Amino acid sequence: MKRYLLAPGPTPVPPVILQAMAQPMIHHRTPEYEALFAEVRRDLRTLFQCGNEVLMFAASGTGAMEGSVANTLSPGDHAIVVQGGKFGERWAEICRAYGVRVLAVTVPYGKSVEPEMVAAALRQAPETRVVFATHSETSTGAVHDIQALAGIVRRTDALLVVDAITSLGVMDLPMDSWGVDVVVSGSQKALMLPPGLAFAALSDRAWARVPEARLPKFYFDFAKERKAMAGNQSAYTPAVSLVVGLRESLRLILAEGLPNVFARHDRLARATRAGVQALGLTLFADHPGAACTAVKAPDGIGGDAIVKGLRKRGITIAGGQGSMKGTMFRIAHMGHVEVFDVLTALAGLEMVLADLGHPVTLGAGLRAAEEVLRK
Amino acid sequence: MKRYLLAPGPTPVPPVILQAMAQPMIHHRTPEYEALFAEVRRDLRTLFQCGNEVLMFAASGTGAMEGSVANTLSPGDHAIVVQGGKFGERWAEICRAYGVRVLAVTVPYGKSVEPEMVAAALRQAPETRVVFATHSETSTGAVHDIQALAGIVRRTDALLVVDAITSLGVMDLPMDSWGVDVVVSGSQKALMLPPGLAFAALSDRAWARVPEARLPKFYFDFAKERKAMAGNQSAYTPAVSLVVGLRESLRLILAEGLPNVFARHDRLARATRAGVQALGLTLFADHPGAACTAVKAPDGIGGDAIVKGLRKRGITIAGGQGSMKGTMFRIAHMGHVEVFDVLTALAGLEMVLADLGHPVTLGAGLRAAEEVLRK
Repeated sequence: MKRYLLAPGPTPVPPVILQAMAQPMIHHRTPEYEALFAEVRRDLRTLFQCGNEVLMFAASGTGAMEGSVANTLSPGDHAIVVQGGKFGERWAEICRAYGVRVLAVTVPYGKSVEPEMVAAALRQAPETRVVFATHSETSTGAVHDIQALAGIVRRTDALLVVDAITSLGVMDLPMDSWGVDVVVSGSQKALMLPPGLAFAALSDRAWARVPEARLPKFYFDFAKERKAMAGNQSAYTPAVSLVVGLRESLRLILAEGLPNVFARHDRLARATRAGVQALGLTLFADHPGAACTAVKAPDGIGGDAIVKGLRKRGITIAGGQGSMKGTMFRIAHMGHVEVFDVLTALAGLEMVLADLGHPVTLGAGLRAAEEVLRK
Repeated sequence: MKRYLLAPGPTPVPPVILQAMAQPMIHHRTPEYEALFAEVRRDLRTLFQCGNEVLMFAASGTGAMEGSVANTLSPGDHAIVVQGGKFGERWAEICRAYGVRVLAVTVPYGKSVEPEMVAAALRQAPETRVVFATHSETSTGAVHDIQALAGIVRRTDALLVVDAITSLGVMDLPMDSWGVDVVVSGSQKALMLPPGLAFAALSDRAWARVPEARLPKFYFDFAKERKAMAGNQSAYTPAVSLVVGLRESLRLILAEGLPNVFARHDRLARATRAGVQALGLTLFADHPGAACTAVKAPDGIGGDAIVKGLRKRGITIAGGQGSMKGTMFRIAHMGHVEVFDVLTALAGLEMVLADLGHPVTLGAGLRAAEEVLRK
C-alpha cells in the first residue's frame, strides 16, 4: 500500500536526503566531515536566526530540553513552567527530576497562555531563574505567544527557554531579535530528517549563566559541546548519517527561503483548518499553529477510530496523548509536505468519517481547502 | 577516490542496511514499528547474551555510560574505576560530574589491569557501590579480563558496569553467565550502523539497585525506558531510521552466528597483528583485542603522518587520542570487515611507510597476514 505520513514527527524525509544518508559511512575525525559540519553550523545559525553557535547532540529533542535545564540551573533554583499540554508538562517533569522548584502557569489543554499570567507569576516569584515555555504545543496544536513572553521575561533577571521542537522552520521565531534565551529543537519535524538529532541555541545572557549552573551534566554539557563544535567536531561521536542528511535539509530550507517556508506552512495549516471546519468539525486549539492541526473527535466517534481508519487507507496521522487520548486527532503539515499531501489527508478523513457513520458531505472539506490553496 | 573505512567507529555500513534506512520514514506509534521493535528487542537480548531487556536510547554510547552512573548511584557514593585509556578515564569523568567519589585503579596506556588490583581496591574501599571497567579500551587496543573482574566483584556487594562499546559483537561477553551487571554499547561499531544508538543491559542485581539510586536523570532514566520498551515503544522519540537499520544488522549478525562472528574478528585481528609485526612494528597493547589494532609509530615517523598518508590513498584509520596523539595509529577490523579489507589496510600501510622513508620490505606484512588468513 502506498503510504502517506502526516504525523507530527517523524515527518516525511525527502528522497534527496534519504539518498545522501545512504552513501557509504564516513568517519567524523576527517577533513571531509569537518568541512561538511562547518557548513551545517553556519546554516543552523541562519535557521535559528541566532548569532551564537547552535549546539547539536545525538539525541531526541527531550535530551536538549534536559540539557537546557541542567546547564542553566542549580539545585533548589526556582523556575516557572508554562504548561498547556504534554510538552509543557515535560519541562516541569525534567525540572523536578533535577530538584528545581517549579511554579506552574497552567492553562487548559487547547488554550494558549495569556502573557500577563507569566508576568504575574514573575511578580509572585521574583527569585525565578528560568521561565520554560513551548512555542508549538504539539499535543494540542496550540501556539504560545513567545514574542510577548520574551518581552516580559526580558524585564527580569530570568531566562526564557523555549521548546521549539515542532515550530522551528515552521513558524517565525527570530530568537535574537525577540530576545529568547534558549531555543531547543529536533531533527524529525520541519527539518525533514529522521529522529536522532537535538539542538539548543543560547543567547549571550544564557551563556553567562552556564558557568554558575551546578546541576550535574555530562553528555549534554553545553560548554563542552560548544568548545568541540568550534573545531567542527562534537564532544562525543556525532550521528554522522543524520548530519550528512542535515546538510541536505538545510540546503533545501535555505534555498526555499525561510519566509517562503513559513508562508507554505501557514497556507497548508489554513487549508487544513478550513477543510476540517467545513466538515463540521471543531478545532482543539483556540490559537492553532502551522505545524499541526488538532481536531476534536466528533461526538460518538473516538479520535482513535479516525486514526485507525486512516491507517487502513495508508495515511498516518496521530491521536491524542495522555488524557487527551481518544478525544481528538492531529494532522501534521510540516516539513516535506505540500498542497496535495494535506488534500490527501482531508480526502482520507472525509471517507473515514463517512465509513464511521458520521454525517459528512464528501468533497466539502476538500473544496474549502482548495479555496484557501488556490489563492 | 574509492574509500576504505577501517577506523574504530563509525565502521562501514553494509549496503543492505543503508538501503533499509533509505526507505520512506515510518511513524513509531504504529503497529508496523512495534512489530519491528519487538524483533529488535528479542535479537538484542541474544546479542547481549542477556535475559533482561536491552535498553535502547537515541544517543552516542557515552549517553548510556552516563545513564549507567545515574541509575545505579547516589550523591557521594563510592566507585572504583579501572582506567588504562581515554574510555576508562571517561567513567571517572562522568562519576565526578555527578559527585560520585572515585577510586581509580590505573594502569599505563597499553596495559590491561591485573584483576588482583581490583580485588585489592575493593578490600581497601569496601564501601564501593560500583566498579566501572572497559572491555575493549579503544584508545589503546587493550582488552581487560572482564570474566576475571566479574568473578572478583561478584564476591562483594558492588556492581560491575562494563563499557562494551567496541567489544559487543566482536569478542565474547556472556553477560549473564559471567555475572556482569551492566553492559553498555553503541551502534557504530560491530553493529555496522551509523552512530546514534546507545544500549544498556542490566542484571537483576543492577535492576534492584535502580530504585534507590538518587542521582538525577531524565532522558537516560532506565526504569522509564524499560517500561516503555515492554510495550514495544521508547520513552522518547526513537531514532527510527537507525532502528530500522538495527533490525537488518541483528539479522546479519545472528545469521552468521555469534561464535562465527567472534571467530572472524579474532582471525582478522591476528592477521593484522602478524602483518604489522612482520613490518618490524610494535603493538601498543600488551593484550590486544579483536576490535582494533593499535601500533606504535616507528621512531622518527609520527602516527599522524601514517594516518594522513593512508587518507591520501583513500584509507581511513585512526591516530592516537589525547596524550597518545602522534605516538601510534589504530587499524580497526570490526563490523562489516573481511579478509581483503585488512589486507587493503596492510598494503596501504606498507606503501605509506615506504613513502615516509621507513625501511620496509613491500609485501612482507601482507605475506604474514595471508599466512594467518589461509588457515
